[in-house]
Amino acid sequence: MLTNDQLSQWDRENFLHPSTAFGQHARGESANRIVKTGSGVFIEDRDGNRFLDAFAGLYCVNVGYGRTEIAEAISRQAHELSYYHAYVGHGTEASITLAKMVADRAPAHMNKVYFGLGGSDANETNVKLVWYIQNVLGRPEKRKIISRWRGYHGSGLITGSLTGLTPFHNKFGLPLSEVVHTEAPYYFRRPRKDMSEAEFTAHCAAELEALIEREGADTIGAFIGEPILGTGGIVPPPAGYWDAIQAILKKHDILLIADEVVTGFGRLGTMMGSTHYGITPDIITIAKGLTSAYAPLSGSIVSDDLFKVLEEGTDKFGPFGHGWTYSAHPIGAAAGVANLKLVDDLGLVQNARDTGAYFQQALKTALGSHRFVGDVRGEGLMAAIELQRDPATGADFDAADKVTAQVVGEMAKRHVIARAMPQGEIIGFAPPLCITPAEIDQVVDATVDALNAVTGAL
Amino acid sequence: MLTNDQLSQWDRENFLHPSTAFGQHARGESANRIVKTGSGVFIEDRDGNRFLDAFAGLYCVNVGYGRTEIAEAISRQAHELSYYHAYVGHGTEASITLAKMVADRAPAHMNKVYFGLGGSDANETNVKLVWYIQNVLGRPEKRKIISRWRGYHGSGLITGSLTGLTPFHNKFGLPLSEVVHTEAPYYFRRPRKDMSEAEFTAHCAAELEALIEREGADTIGAFIGEPILGTGGIVPPPAGYWDAIQAILKKHDILLIADEVVTGFGRLGTMMGSTHYGITPDIITIAKGLTSAYAPLSGSIVSDDLFKVLEEGTDKFGPFGHGWTYSAHPIGAAAGVANLKLVDDLGLVQNARDTGAYFQQALKTALGSHRFVGDVRGEGLMAAIELQRDPATGADFDAADKVTAQVVGEMAKRHVIARAMPQGEIIGFAPPLCITPAEIDQVVDATVDALNAVTGAL
Ligand SMILES: Cc1ncc(COP(=O)(O)O)c(C=O)c1O
Ligand SMILES: Cc1ncc(COP(=O)(O)O)c(C=O)c1O
Repeated sequence: MLTNDQLSQWDRENFLHPSTAFGQHARGESANRIVKTGSGVFIEDRDGNRFLDAFAGLYCVNVGYGRTEIAEAISRQAHELSYYHAYVGHGTEASITLAKMVADRAPAHMNKVYFGLGGSDANETNVKLVWYIQNVLGRPEKRKIISRWRGYHGSGLITGSLTGLTPFHNKFGLPLSEVVHTEAPYYFRRPRKDMSEAEFTAHCAAELEALIEREGADTIGAFIGEPILGTGGIVPPPAGYWDAIQAILKKHDILLIADEVVTGFGRLGTMMGSTHYGITPDIITIAKGLTSAYAPLSGSIVSDDLFKVLEEGTDKFGPFGHGWTYSAHPIGAAAGVANLKLVDDLGLVQNARDTGAYFQQALKTALGSHRFVGDVRGEGLMAAIELQRDPATGADFDAADKVTAQVVGEMAKRHVIARAMPQGEIIGFAPPLCITPAEIDQVVDATVDALNAVTGAL
Repeated sequence: MLTNDQLSQWDRENFLHPSTAFGQHARGESANRIVKTGSGVFIEDRDGNRFLDAFAGLYCVNVGYGRTEIAEAISRQAHELSYYHAYVGHGTEASITLAKMVADRAPAHMNKVYFGLGGSDANETNVKLVWYIQNVLGRPEKRKIISRWRGYHGSGLITGSLTGLTPFHNKFGLPLSEVVHTEAPYYFRRPRKDMSEAEFTAHCAAELEALIEREGADTIGAFIGEPILGTGGIVPPPAGYWDAIQAILKKHDILLIADEVVTGFGRLGTMMGSTHYGITPDIITIAKGLTSAYAPLSGSIVSDDLFKVLEEGTDKFGPFGHGWTYSAHPIGAAAGVANLKLVDDLGLVQNARDTGAYFQQALKTALGSHRFVGDVRGEGLMAAIELQRDPATGADFDAADKVTAQVVGEMAKRHVIARAMPQGEIIGFAPPLCITPAEIDQVVDATVDALNAVTGAL
């Protein structure tokens, strides 16, 4: 058995972690944590610390940790057949069954699924689908993708460009020119405080129209958006937003990609976030909730109308020139089948709705009028509080004070994990969908205590 | 238990397979195959057919199918902790151990590993690393990536652009402008038949120099290449190629990415393909052989020199804004640890060398002077035969005749899987590294029989 010291040394010497300050990590100046096991909403590290994970990993462990049903399904698949590829019509019982299960859970007009590995590569696939489809339709110049500021769609080169957050652009020379950004549907940060939600929605719509005008509708292939902004700050859209946006897209013949990597399979208290907000997408991106992260798997769900174009294209031009070696990997597929079954068996969509409502109310009650809380918001089992130096005047904290990071650090001392969202002073919550009201209370209490511990000193 | 008919119906109705003619598949006009289990070099489908898989999936199942040691490692990890993220210094025993094991197997000057999921996303990461590093070095305009025609580096938007094969560009509007291509090191297709290998190497070098001249060295960030061309036709480089290329890159201060997704961990009879050809890369891409495909995992190995720049950058600008939710996924990491141990325990690198030499010789003997074989080539346990209508005059088959597809189809009837490479009339072989000489004989015999069955009719 390896000692923690040995592991820690190798960690410093050899491991480049995502979203990490490499230098500090290598020199041992920042904390590292070796996670050992988990159960329900709790994880435990190798030093024996136990945490209530109120962000479910990266809002992905929807069914909670330690689910034997999924571990067993993975184990059975690993013993029977760990891998065969899915190219040129190859499949496995698990991948085919999962395709059917996903189609059954998708909006009725969407019945075809392409499987990838993570959310980023699924959005890569989606952009390829859009470019191919516009080509087959004889309008190859309809190619730019509109994304929103504060959207998160991955951290690749194009997907990081779709993402509308500066930490993912700076120093990489992104966004690339194939992507253009429009207004974030972020009512709390509306241009004028006296705007109603309806007025702000009209403003977002007008901004989108103006962008399309400027770029030329004949250069725009698709629009991508999360039903509710996630990594950009966990922000539900203003009333009427999706109706207004969809009307404009339809008018200009622009495809709609709903990125449901976070919202797919229950997080908002409905099976799909699109249904929740009355969105009728052409393509849906899925990942996290598909397997609850027990194994990597993502997907692109394609509408029947788009499939007709794909059919026409491949009839004319031959096989679709796209694929990852691990597309539809059997281990991921087996995890997905067991996971979606568990979501049903445990009634987790309903629990996200019920316990989600309890959570939103509890957060508002406990923190709605805190002197450093500017906004409490969320939907289902996604929530955020946004900190400000003075909510009355709208004065923000200085980023250099790292208030949010401090609060999240204090919460960890209280054995609760929340997430300091990457842009702004925003604390994010997205616990496993199996969380109970008592566990919610623990999260809310830790948040209040930590916030007071940090701001008491201000 | 689901019936095969039921699965087949769902497969047609709901599953979009990679590299597949979607229309034909959906309408049931092309074959589908549901793979059930595997052992050693063999797989078995749900109809009870058994095949010797001489392409190891997609040259990835290096240790062979049905390895209990890896299945057990996956099972243990799934039960202990299926997932936690690796962001901001988080790790697991498996991911940290694997980072150390990879560093131990990489060239001595390379000691840091970033983990992704598949080869494509690892190359995404690599381009991001290059852009970031050139930015930190104060030369953000050093940004274009040079790739070779016939290189394969993935099928995303940038990675599909790096790929130099038309089936991955056509109808997608690729390559993007960030990528420029240079001559394929494909001696068999040299510009003039009277060129020696040395002359052809000089030609490739001159082409590269001319490209750099044309574009301006101050616009070129990196060069990417597979030690031996893989999906582009399994083509070993001409003598002296890598020395000549590296001298030019050094002269123009251009980083070198060695894409070892196929060659990493033994396929050429050496642990890394870079060592095999005397390549000193700045970054190495790894995937397939890292886990033998038992679970998705890829990686980017970074040189100590580049790490210094990353350290400087993150000290100045904060955390590296990059990551996939499933980076360093515990299941993939556990599979990787067990797999690399098995590669050692079974002596598979040595077997790739020895049985590889036997394979190359057997193919040459059996097919070197076949009247429709233009070239027999390979290295270690990668080999290809290239078909021509008339090798004496160099006349090629008409692509529309689909000769290679027919031969591979005939081989399947003889229960051996080889791969019709995507561009050209090339049959590819890359069996599991545990293959025996007797199994090699079976592959060669099936190839000869199938080729004669098809060409007898010509
Ligand atoms: C909405 C959304 N899309 C895409 C992604 C990217 O997924 P991945 O990290 O698996 O590449 C994420 C990740 O958080 C996401 O939240
Ligand atoms: C050399 C090379 N690089 C990258 C890739 C892409 O890997 P993946 O299919 O896992 O995305 C491949 C796949 O065959 C490859 O052969």
